[in-house]
Amino acid sequence: VNEFELIERLTTGLPLNASTRVGSGDDCAVLDLGLDGQWLIFKTDAVVDGVHFDTSALPEQIGHKAMGRCLSDVAAMGGCPTHALVTLGLPTGFDALRVERIYSGLRALATRYGVAIVGGETTTSPDRLFLSVALIGTVERGRCPLRSGARAGDAIFVTGELGGSLVSGRHLTFEPRVAEGRWLVERFEIHAMIDLSDGLAGDLRHVLKSSGVGAELQVDAIPVSAVVRGGGRLDNPSEADDATTKEMGGRLKSALSDGEDFELLFTLPAGQAVELMDGWRARFGGLKLSCIGRITSGTEVTLRGKDGIRPLELDGYVHFKGT
Amino acid sequence: VNEFELIERLTTGLPLNASTRVGSGDDCAVLDLGLDGQWLIFKTDAVVDGVHFDTSALPEQIGHKAMGRCLSDVAAMGGCPTHALVTLGLPTGFDALRVERIYSGLRALATRYGVAIVGGETTTSPDRLFLSVALIGTVERGRCPLRSGARAGDAIFVTGELGGSLVSGRHLTFEPRVAEGRWLVERFEIHAMIDLSDGLAGDLRHVLKSSGVGAELQVDAIPVSAVVRGGGRLDNPSEADDATTKEMGGRLKSALSDGEDFELLFTLPAGQAVELMDGWRARFGGLKLSCIGRITSGTEVTLRGKDGIRPLELDGYVHFKGT
Repeated sequence: VNEFELIERLTTGLPLNASTRVGSGDDCAVLDLGLDGQWLIFKTDAVVDGVHFDTSALPEQIGHKAMGRCLSDVAAMGGCPTHALVTLGLPTGFDALRVERIYSGLRALATRYGVAIVGGETTTSPDRLFLSVALIGTVERGRCPLRSGARAGDAIFVTGELGGSLVSGRHLTFEPRVAEGRWLVERFEIHAMIDLSDGLAGDLRHVLKSSGVGAELQVDAIPVSAVVRGGGRLDNPSEADDATTKEMGGRLKSALSDGEDFELLFTLPAGQAVELMDGWRARFGGLKLSCIGRITSGTEVTLRGKDGIRPLELDGYVHFKGT
Repeated sequence: VNEFELIERLTTGLPLNASTRVGSGDDCAVLDLGLDGQWLIFKTDAVVDGVHFDTSALPEQIGHKAMGRCLSDVAAMGGCPTHALVTLGLPTGFDALRVERIYSGLRALATRYGVAIVGGETTTSPDRLFLSVALIGTVERGRCPLRSGARAGDAIFVTGELGGSLVSGRHLTFEPRVAEGRWLVERFEIHAMIDLSDGLAGDLRHVLKSSGVGAELQVDAIPVSAVVRGGGRLDNPSEADDATTKEMGGRLKSALSDGEDFELLFTLPAGQAVELMDGWRARFGGLKLSCIGRITSGTEVTLRGKDGIRPLELDGYVHFKGT
């Protein structure tokens, strides 16, 4: 039984109630508690020592990552995060100063986004430290983009650059795209949105499966991070032409499947794309925004490159000729 | 650094915001999100294999305990629980069937209280399983009893019977007092309420410290569980007289400090005590309700028995003569 099969089994037939708008299966749960003009969003996320970080991580970065992962999910709902609880599993003989430094990482990021830390608990976790953050927030009624909202003809956009997050250490220092998510849902008709944690290939599949649609991606448009580019060669299309297809395939695969990018992927009507790009540059000039393809009416995911169209595998593996 | 000192350090100067009514330091956080007539309550709680349960626990009981602990905290706020998220840390080579059985324990208890399970996540926890439940709910504005609300002259009540929860296995099967908590806040002026997780002696101290008051408890009124009574001898005052003070001290200490009772302790104006007892018997006849003493204006906690008044130690230890 793999993780996805187990989750499928566990989440089948869960108790729901009349105030549940969205239960399991999206970035956050969405609840209608009768709040004037708003829905509540609700999310938890955990990080475990040796799984989500190792001894190379600064304590502050561990706290930053734990809070940032939750904030990234709230961002993907276009939500405004408001309150957090922090659960801390402390190993035997923990170092109190290290724990305080972890907390200061949590606190700094929470403060930046106006999130109150309203409690939580410490518990014993004999072998290894873990942190679980629970977050609530609000989003305007009916403005919350779900994974299931993508429609054929939509343009697909992605923020920032992808790949190499674990190698570069960016997975410990990333900025959750909360401001960007809010800006998007306030100004555009965002049909679907997700944060990139499993890698573009996997996360796009979540959107497509939930929406019952396919996609065609443009190879050249996928924003490959500097660390993956290895010095920026793929930035320049003429140099990219010189790269062997095998090199390109490797780099592209990193961008598609390394995971932990914590960027936003979203779709909106293609007619809004130009206005979006203009507005984005004015507001978030320093952050790349790429139109990487379009939603199609089929169920396939294809990659269009110089030498034609190929299917994209679930894990981001790209079938280039000769490999 | 012990747990309480660490928590004190971590929770000093946490970021709060205007919508936070109660942050860390009570059973749940209380938030004002502008909900008509209601506050939101927010809580997380975790259980860890080998710490909160061992191999003797049925998987369903593990799920029951994880959900029940959170529900018990909501009960202590007089709240109505509505939605939960479940975080599952799964060890390497986990048994999928066992995980499904844990989930069915969670699910059964959630269903009983109308709580929707709206998602969560599974993550890798290589050495041992953990479960963290995040719960939200609602409570009528201004009706939420805090730890800080006890006043001199209040009567102190406790539901059920105390002690021996770990020995009897009751810590895995207890019923959270959600219905009782709701009933209390809807009908009476409950000044303070807390759920008994650390043991009466410790949890009463939390209330007294937050409220800046003391208490005098009646030894004979403390409801000692059947498993601690070892056959019910202390039920009968004349037999209790025959017990050695040492035996009595041991049993009383169990009731005061074993912990994990998950009963409610609350205070209300002494003038409402008779009406409370009458109403309680009519509504919750099967469940014991004991008036165990009163809130005093000092800061001391004393125990009044046949041979006078003695101080109660923080850990529940009772200084009986000759021991």
